[in-house]
Amino acid sequence: MEELLKRAFSGDPRAVGRLISLVESETSDAKELMKQIYPRTGKAQVIGVTGSPGAGKSTFVDRLISHYKNDGKKVGVIAIDPSSPYTGGAILGDRLRMQSHALDSDVFIRSMGSRGNLGGVSRATHEAALILDACGYDVVIIETVGVGQSEVDIVKIADTVCLVLVPGMGDDVQIMKAGIMEIADIFVINKSDKEGADKVASDVQLMLKLIGEKEWIPPVVMVSSYKNTGVEHVKAALDDHATYLASSEEGKRRRYSKLEMEVEAILRGEISLLVEKVWNKERESGILDRLACRDCDPYTLASEIITEIVK
Amino acid sequence: MEELLKRAFSGDPRAVGRLISLVESETSDAKELMKQIYPRTGKAQVIGVTGSPGAGKSTFVDRLISHYKNDGKKVGVIAIDPSSPYTGGAILGDRLRMQSHALDSDVFIRSMGSRGNLGGVSRATHEAALILDACGYDVVIIETVGVGQSEVDIVKIADTVCLVLVPGMGDDVQIMKAGIMEIADIFVINKSDKEGADKVASDVQLMLKLIGEKEWIPPVVMVSSYKNTGVEHVKAALDDHATYLASSEEGKRRRYSKLEMEVEAILRGEISLLVEKVWNKERESGILDRLACRDCDPYTLASEIITEIVK
Repeated sequence: MEELLKRAFSGDPRAVGRLISLVESETSDAKELMKQIYPRTGKAQVIGVTGSPGAGKSTFVDRLISHYKNDGKKVGVIAIDPSSPYTGGAILGDRLRMQSHALDSDVFIRSMGSRGNLGGVSRATHEAALILDACGYDVVIIETVGVGQSEVDIVKIADTVCLVLVPGMGDDVQIMKAGIMEIADIFVINKSDKEGADKVASDVQLMLKLIGEKEWIPPVVMVSSYKNTGVEHVKAALDDHATYLASSEEGKRRRYSKLEMEVEAILRGEISLLVEKVWNKERESGILDRLACRDCDPYTLASEIITEIVK
Repeated sequence: MEELLKRAFSGDPRAVGRLISLVESETSDAKELMKQIYPRTGKAQVIGVTGSPGAGKSTFVDRLISHYKNDGKKVGVIAIDPSSPYTGGAILGDRLRMQSHALDSDVFIRSMGSRGNLGGVSRATHEAALILDACGYDVVIIETVGVGQSEVDIVKIADTVCLVLVPGMGDDVQIMKAGIMEIADIFVINKSDKEGADKVASDVQLMLKLIGEKEWIPPVVMVSSYKNTGVEHVKAALDDHATYLASSEEGKRRRYSKLEMEVEAILRGEISLLVEKVWNKERESGILDRLACRDCDPYTLASEIITEIVK
């Protein structure tokens, strides 16, 4: 483990990958690992990229990576794949559009399942982002599935959220309705050469006015990932937002709120483990038979268990 | 409290309503209350009615109530209303279609919010069902919102799940895909006089064959709530299923699995309260500042909090 960490911290991508696998498989080592990782975190800029399937998120991320690479920065990418809540298996996306960086040692790309958290951003995703941060990746990009909860959850992990919209998809209005507007720091209007792109941009501007003025006014940037235009403006906006977060009260508020959510998520996990342990012991002693015939009740039983384990 | 319980147990609907309000508001009395309630539970048949919005669940439930009433049975209905995840407020549905029983003392109808559990079936809903059971309602019907998690969660509370489907809604296939098929014990094809109803029924039969033979083969019943036809067949199927559950290994397995989930939910709630208390204390003592400058890490902190609480 010591050896693995040393190699990962020195920038060996295979060691980094193994660390992520360890947190993904939720072994008991994972927690000890994260205790070692954590002190080195807090340096990377964590960018969430969200938007409907088909909005061209992967291609956009591919272009963005190039811009960061030109600046000499190391980039880590976590692409969240949809996974069935019933089988628990992740369908690995092909991520073909990011393959231009596949052999590049300064770019680390990893697909992760979204299982466990209702299609959302799981604890493992967060821990993978922390690992990349600790291992010297200057920028960590998390690309969401683009469906449901993951879009709202990304705000719990990312410093800056980019929402990618495209013309000609009826669901733009859906996105605006679903509370995604509120979490976007930067709006990326992709496929800007397509008809209707201007309309999407002006709709977003209008919605932003309706939401009301805030300290940070989310820029709306026209991009064509295909033609590779406009991406530099997104990068400039990302830099601006990082500066804003570093210097503003809102930035501090967000960092603290993220820390809170982090501790609470870990605590929830610990609580579940604890419950499982004490409850398994009771179950073996035939308590279910007694409950079934109403010889005792779950409320009294829970109180008893709590009294037994709590100081 | 003693007085209130006595009145509720003797069948006073206003007292029953007050008990439900108590568990809904999560006062500290609620737990003591449930300890008194629980020994009297386990007699009612708890029926979950789920299906997409627009499938005519409320009208169907209204008709079903009439059939039970004709048998001289007391019926309690809990209608779960959607509540916004953002404001936390429940939008009370009008439930107009059940008003034919509104002034009937043998029928108790209550709308409850679904807040807290991601649009699902909350602990308060479960406790309300237990209260109705304890207060002498022979049948307890829980009508879900019909969106997302609530449809899968209903299986944790209900003895028998009725899935209401209608022709002409594109989402039937969606429902079949989303794992709802597996939890339905009875399929109700509503609006059976409409074109396409036979097709829905045969699609369901086909899907059931694909899932594979089970001990209980879910009947597919054609119903027109509007014309009030076929509902008696659903009631017969509900009776059959109750008999099946009472006499089979599967029935016992289900009862035990529900008890387990019940205890685990209560335990998680209890431990969460304890953890919250310690965590709030930590927060006040400026732990977030220490976390922010990486002077400590959330993993070690979580371990310390748990150690502080647990023996």
